[in-house]
Formats: sequence, structure tokens, C-alpha cells
Amino acid sequence: MYDCIIIGCGPSGMTCALYLKRAGKSVLIIERSMPGGQMVLTHNIQNYPGIEQIDGATLSNKMFEQITNMGVDVVFEDVISCSLTGKVKVVNTDKNSYQGKTVYIATGASSRLLGIEGEKKFTSKGVSYCATCDGALYKDCVVAVVGGGNTSLEDCLYLANIAKKVYLIHRRDEFRGDKILVDRLKQFEKSGKLELILNSQVVAISGDEKVRSINILNKLNNKISSIEVDALFVAIGREPDTDVFDGVKLNSSKYIEVDEKKHTNIEGVFAGGDVSDTNLRQIVTACSDGAIASTSITSYLSKL
Amino acid sequence: MYDCIIIGCGPSGMTCALYLKRAGKSVLIIERSMPGGQMVLTHNIQNYPGIEQIDGATLSNKMFEQITNMGVDVVFEDVISCSLTGKVKVVNTDKNSYQGKTVYIATGASSRLLGIEGEKKFTSKGVSYCATCDGALYKDCVVAVVGGGNTSLEDCLYLANIAKKVYLIHRRDEFRGDKILVDRLKQFEKSGKLELILNSQVVAISGDEKVRSINILNKLNNKISSIEVDALFVAIGREPDTDVFDGVKLNSSKYIEVDEKKHTNIEGVFAGGDVSDTNLRQIVTACSDGAIASTSITSYLSKL
Repeated sequence: MYDCIIIGCGPSGMTCALYLKRAGKSVLIIERSMPGGQMVLTHNIQNYPGIEQIDGATLSNKMFEQITNMGVDVVFEDVISCSLTGKVKVVNTDKNSYQGKTVYIATGASSRLLGIEGEKKFTSKGVSYCATCDGALYKDCVVAVVGGGNTSLEDCLYLANIAKKVYLIHRRDEFRGDKILVDRLKQFEKSGKLELILNSQVVAISGDEKVRSINILNKLNNKISSIEVDALFVAIGREPDTDVFDGVKLNSSKYIEVDEKKHTNIEGVFAGGDVSDTNLRQIVTACSDGAIASTSITSYLSKL
Repeated sequence: MYDCIIIGCGPSGMTCALYLKRAGKSVLIIERSMPGGQMVLTHNIQNYPGIEQIDGATLSNKMFEQITNMGVDVVFEDVISCSLTGKVKVVNTDKNSYQGKTVYIATGASSRLLGIEGEKKFTSKGVSYCATCDGALYKDCVVAVVGGGNTSLEDCLYLANIAKKVYLIHRRDEFRGDKILVDRLKQFEKSGKLELILNSQVVAISGDEKVRSINILNKLNNKISSIEVDALFVAIGREPDTDVFDGVKLNSSKYIEVDEKKHTNIEGVFAGGDVSDTNLRQIVTACSDGAIASTSITSYLSKL
């Protein structure tokens, strides 16, 4: 019986493990693929405080060594079901069954893909799923954003401060985002810095070592045109990994609802990082969630 | 006119600056003493994710270089007054007056000191103000905690999982902390792992290169006794640095009230890190607050 079973070995799960182990607790991390989560896919991280520049795989390895050197148990198995509502939490994987007094869910979320030609090839070479993470790489460049919700609108406003020109490509002629953001965007449009391409979808991404252009299908006249861009920011949503957590309360987008101390609706079950209902999804915010959760978990354990 | 004036150059202020600069904003940091804040006073940091072990001065320097290399302006001046309620925020220092569209308050909090012999000499050499930060250094050691509130009780429970023996020294015979924590503490007392020393205060700290013993005054019989300890954890409260922020809403302990996006009660004024009304005060949580605040600041600026 572990004091805590952590599901997901990204920055949030690893930080929670680090803090719990320092607090003298026994910890098991269960990870489906490899340590680091989304972080490991990031080519060039420049916004992690204290480390000026690092690639995601190296930062993942550093965090992983830090916790394994402390004696955190990690298994690479796939969680297929859980029984979380009892006093003893049971987590079943494809290989084993584990018991814990508490569970920290830190399974993260994956960006939704466009599923088009060139997307995988140019990921981290001009195709990005996070303007806050990668926008600064495109100072005075030409960039495009795909999407119609608040994230895509905020990405455009964010990028308009950095890039020379921003295209916003949206498959409809109206935006789902907040009116105030849309109004602000239209101001930028007047300045020529932003160009809206409506009723359109990106159908292919081309380049050499990096993205050079994208093909866009106009859905009204079915014509395909090409524009030159240095980067394409895809902002069509994310999918949290919450399928196996029966009874854990999710919001309408399937993210786990947590309070500020990272409690879920179930006693002894905590969640944080990208899988939770949060405003910003960065490595440092995921780590912080793990630290906060560890304190709540320690406090819960001390009252058992 | 800066897009944002950040007051305080600790981890929270520096992370906010990092993110704002990446978002193409102009940023000024005003710092009274030196970069790093409380972090710079920490001897040995082992709980910052991704960096297995580092001293506080080095981590402070790394963060400082990271932001100055990006072109963040930093001045070392003392803020003496502010005018924050208008659309233009004015921050007056002992040397200059600065204007900003927004202000991020990240002035931190200082631990309250005992003010006794040996305290300064042994700080980071056995005297600590943060069990979560330094507790793991005292595995199988004898430690003492001073205080009577929830923090001191939680520190005892935290340390009881790590240390061989924990003394809790409190000047009264009753605790201000939650009953459930007190009950749990009394259980530990029965096990012999914890010893309560009530109606008593620590009057001196002695040692060689590190703490070896403390002198304790029993206030009922006025006798002084000495106990051997490897560390003394001081948990008698903290004082946030909030004196010059007229109009900013504070809680009853003088911490700044913020919502989850780090807004204060005043439009365009944000706060985070140790100075804010938060549950956990760690380097990584302060950094995270800075990142979250930067997003709220960018969003506020885009709507001006």
C-alpha cells in the first residue's frame, strides 16, 4: 500500500513525487509512455525559470533523475481502470493492480491535431500548439494561427506583439471567442498587422528544414491558395486524458475540476497540471500544482 | 511608460518579467536589495524541479541573467509610495518616479525572527524558517519546532516522518492550531517521537559549525534548561511586505488578496508569490504565480 499513487510522469507528477518523498511518504508513479509528458516533445524550452535554454527531453531526464535518485518507484504501465471512492484507492494497469491511500491524477492533455499533410513532419519546426511557449521564437516573422475560440484569438493578440504579421485562419465566418477579443482583433486588422482568413481551412503544410508555406482551402469557392509563413500555431483545442477516472467530476471539456488546493470531488483523490481545469498550462504551473497537491496530500494523510 | 512595473525581484517577479518580455511587453523591475528575494538566503535548494541541488544565490543569479539577457530593465531602488487606482499607475522610489499601465506586486514576505542569541549566526546552519524547504536535510536527526499556530503543528507532523525525534516548544499551554492537528500531535506524543515543551520559550541557540543545542526558559518556574538538537525550525509567522500599497485589499494577516488569476481588487494591479494570500510559499509556486499573472496582465493590456 503506497501513501500516494501518482498517475502520469510529467512535470506535475514528478514534482508531487519529489515533495512527497521529501515529506517521508511512499510514492509510486505509473506512466504509460515515457517520463516528461508533453514536455518531452518540446524542442526548445526558454521559459522555465532558472534554466535559460534546454530541450524538453533533457529537462525531462533531469526531473526523472531527481526523483529516481530519491527512491520514487516508477512503473511503465497503462492504467485501464480505477476504483477511487473507497478509503483504499485501487489502480489497475494492463499488468498489475496497485493500492494507495491517495491518488494524484497528472495525466495531462494532448493538443488536438489538424491531421493534415506535413503536420507531424514540421512539429517543433514551425508547427506549434502553444503560442505562449514558442511565440518568442518568431520575432519579426510571419505566422498563422488556426482556430476560432478564445485561445486562438488570444494567441493572435499575443503573437501580434512579437511577429511582423499574423494570419488567423478560421473555418467559419464568426468566432466563438469573447466579443472584446474579437473587437480588439478587428482593430489589429485595420493596422494591417493581422489578416483574417475566414471560411477557410489549412489543408497542407510545406517547407524544407522548417515550415515555409501553408495551403488554405476556401470553403465558399473551393479554391486552394498558398501563403508563406514561418510558423503555424494550431489552437483547435486540447484533449485531457480522463477516460479511466470513474466518479471524478469533470468540466464540460472533460478537464478535472479541482479547488485551489488541488482536491477533486473525491476524498483522497487530487489532480493538477494540464489535466485539471486551469487557466494556464505551462511546465512551471504544472510543477507548482504538484507541489501544492503534495501539501494537501500530506495534510490528508496526517488526518487518516 | 512601461507596460508593467514589477515590484520585487524574487522568483515570482522574475518569472512574470520573463513571460511578459517574451510576450513583447516593456517591463521594469524595482528591487530594494538584491535579486532573488528570500531564495538568495537559502543555503541548499533540493526541491526545485529539474535542478537536483543548487544554492539560493546561484539559482537567483541564473534567473537574473535569464531576464537581463532578454532586456528586462531592473533598478535597485526602494519603493516609498504608489498611486495605483488610476489608469496610469505611478510608483515612487527613493530616487525616481515611474509610470506603468499595470503593476505586479511581488515583494514577498519575511519570516518573523525570534531575535535571540545565535539565531542569525546559525541561519541555514540548523536554524530554518521553512520545514517543507529544509526538513529533508534532517533525516533521523533530532529537531525542534517553535510556535503555536497551524504552521508549527503541520511542521511537526511533517518532520515526524523524517526526523528521529521532534520537540515542539510553545510559549503557552494551548495551541491556536486546528483541533484535528493537535489531536494528531498528541498521538505522536504517545509514541515518544514527539515531545511537547509548553509554557516555554527558546532563549539561545548554540553550536559550532552548526546548531548543537538550544536553551529553553520555562516561564512557570523561570528555570533555563538545554536540549541537544540538530535543527531548530522557527514557525512564529511571516510578515508580508505590503506597507506602501494604499488601496490594495489585504487579508487580516496583511497578505494581498488575489483571485486565481492573480488579480487584486484594483484594476491593472496584480500580485503573486509570498506576498499574496496563498497556501504554499515555495520557489516553484512563486514562479508559477508570476507566469499566471503575466497572462492576466497581457490579457488586461490587450483590452486597454
